[in-house]
Amino acid sequence: MARWEGGAAARLREAAMELYAERGFEQTTVAEIADRTGLTARTFFRHFADKREVLFAGSEALQEGMVTALRDAPPSATPMGAVGAALDASTVFLGRDHTHSRRRHAIISANPELLERELIKMATLAAALSAGLRERGVPEPDASLAAQAGIVVLQVTFERWVTSPAATDLRTEMSSNLERLQTVTTAQ
Amino acid sequence: MARWEGGAAARLREAAMELYAERGFEQTTVAEIADRTGLTARTFFRHFADKREVLFAGSEALQEGMVTALRDAPPSATPMGAVGAALDASTVFLGRDHTHSRRRHAIISANPELLERELIKMATLAAALSAGLRERGVPEPDASLAAQAGIVVLQVTFERWVTSPAATDLRTEMSSNLERLQTVTTAQ
Repeated sequence: MARWEGGAAARLREAAMELYAERGFEQTTVAEIADRTGLTARTFFRHFADKREVLFAGSEALQEGMVTALRDAPPSATPMGAVGAALDASTVFLGRDHTHSRRRHAIISANPELLERELIKMATLAAALSAGLRERGVPEPDASLAAQAGIVVLQVTFERWVTSPAATDLRTEMSSNLERLQTVTTAQ
Repeated sequence: MARWEGGAAARLREAAMELYAERGFEQTTVAEIADRTGLTARTFFRHFADKREVLFAGSEALQEGMVTALRDAPPSATPMGAVGAALDASTVFLGRDHTHSRRRHAIISANPELLERELIKMATLAAALSAGLRERGVPEPDASLAAQAGIVVLQVTFERWVTSPAATDLRTEMSSNLERLQTVTTAQ
């Protein structure tokens, strides 16, 4: 991608986020997003499949980063150890910009269609991690249980991080909540 | 509800499930469902808000049953112990009819819109269980972690049960997978 094109995507994303926050996601059109940046709708569609894509463009990179970390965990790692490595990798993507994440979260929470998309993203992520664990030789149901338990930690941690007014360290929170899950599930 | 009305709902549900399986969910109309039973579309709408509702009519009873079991768990029960009681209660609703559940699962799996609805149902259930745990005095993030981990066990167990050709005992599977989750999450 040429340098100015990268700039265009970033400007379009910024303008879209502003408009979604000001008017609501439903009420914003691609033409308005393009207008605010001085670019055309055609340029918008070179970078994003649709309005929704602006909010979910990072999903593939997140999934790839998590699956790679799971795959690269030492062969001696337990299923949950490998999932822990994936969670640790996720914080590089998710913990980058607290202000942006807070805005995105507010936009998504206000729109049922976007919330559904977020749930589907999480289910897809869980399925990818399960597949990665099976490739590591983990049998079912352990692979699905460990992968989905990891996604629970990710969701709970990210939700708390993003709704907290001050930016705490997401990586520390993630590893602390993974430990909490272990404590909570085994307390008899 | 008068007796004949209960009969109408059951007949409509049966006809709808047949048609969804034969033609696909999208391709079936309410008029066709009513036709097959010799009833009117008006009668259909007295029992179900829409076509989709036929497949999700049991959701409220399931949630109520699970939340009640969680609430009624002895005060000494740990968070996961209370969630275990809710999971046990869920099997009364989910494990009733393997053949019906298998058909329903095949219909839902073939339709992204129905799969989304199923995900939302699970997220709502997790939120209800978290709220129930907080009422029992469980702090966050433990309440969310325990509730969502329980939903993971429910989803993994039900998916395996419903895709298995022979009906195993759902209640036994549920409790065995809850134990597996505990083993998997704590193996270092």
